[in-house]
Amino acid sequence: MILYGRNLSPFVRRVHLWLALQRRAFEQQGLAATEPADAEAIRAVNPIRRVPALVLEDGTTLTECFAICDWLDETGGPRLIPAAGIARREALGRIAVASATSDKAVAMVYERNRRPEAFHYPDWQARLSDQIQEGLALVEASVPETGWMGDRWRGGEGPDGGDLAAVCLHDFLAVTNPWLLEPGYPRLVALAARANAASPFAASHPG
Amino acid sequence: MILYGRNLSPFVRRVHLWLALQRRAFEQQGLAATEPADAEAIRAVNPIRRVPALVLEDGTTLTECFAICDWLDETGGPRLIPAAGIARREALGRIAVASATSDKAVAMVYERNRRPEAFHYPDWQARLSDQIQEGLALVEASVPETGWMGDRWRGGEGPDGGDLAAVCLHDFLAVTNPWLLEPGYPRLVALAARANAASPFAASHPG
Repeated sequence: MILYGRNLSPFVRRVHLWLALQRRAFEQQGLAATEPADAEAIRAVNPIRRVPALVLEDGTTLTECFAICDWLDETGGPRLIPAAGIARREALGRIAVASATSDKAVAMVYERNRRPEAFHYPDWQARLSDQIQEGLALVEASVPETGWMGDRWRGGEGPDGGDLAAVCLHDFLAVTNPWLLEPGYPRLVALAARANAASPFAASHPG
Repeated sequence: MILYGRNLSPFVRRVHLWLALQRRAFEQQGLAATEPADAEAIRAVNPIRRVPALVLEDGTTLTECFAICDWLDETGGPRLIPAAGIARREALGRIAVASATSDKAVAMVYERNRRPEAFHYPDWQARLSDQIQEGLALVEASVPETGWMGDRWRGGEGPDGGDLAAVCLHDFLAVTNPWLLEPGYPRLVALAARANAASPFAASHPG
């Protein structure tokens, strides 16, 4: 399998980690949709020029995080989202919150870091910033506290899809717009720290 | 259940149609995240102020289309995404393409229809426009041709989640930026026309 995209993208890195935690063999083409030279190579596998894109052994290209990870969970293990029931709904709920916040964090990069300053629209930045803070507060509330039982993942003994989504969101903000983390999200920061202390998180860290 | 959001949003309308095709009883609060008065009511159920949000009978709020529809498929019928296998991957693939294109169509509205003209960034509009055209071409290629066997859905006898996503994308563009449909996507236009000829599509049309 070949994963297209750079681990800076919280969505690409989530797929990277999913593949790694399932101990799958894969290559990665670390291309950026925003680089003209890279964009053409991405277009060849996904004409919309969006990453992540995952090309399977049979040549099929899967796109969008939710669809890619659904297929990985169906065809490999361990599952990073429970197969059914309230546990599945709960995990997808945490992934939904982290994904929505990641969407806004990506939009902030396009607005503030990439768009020429003359075209910055302050109302839009303020709106995105507020949405990101609210999203981070929801993520923070869902991260397990580090207590006397030791470091824990929300997914139990290992990280689940929601843990991956939370860490990828945190690290993307830390690299692109660290001021958005200034209000302080201690559980999320601690989760990212213990994740990034070891592979495959350390090896895929975008910083 | 209470669905928050207006059917103008291709993602809200997709959930509306999912609920209707599963013959579920639901109310809808047709609120717009972009209207200050509405935003506070949306914030009360989803602090990130994003729609769709679906409040279940037990008070749980689900957000993001992929997570909401997953739960609806698990707890009701008919399923609009097959439960497993290549059929599931294929349906999720069509939903992924329509969702990515819808994301770009929404971004175009924020850029072109809502942002003051002084802050319009032509390069961004050109990029979004190109991505939307490529996405529409992929959707077009996946829509069944209307042939001598009569009108068909990709989902078989009735529409599936991919059909809903395609129609909602088409109708959103037709209302907000019809020029993006000018290259002509005859199968998609025909699919939308036969969908909108009857309930629940007709009743939820945003035009």
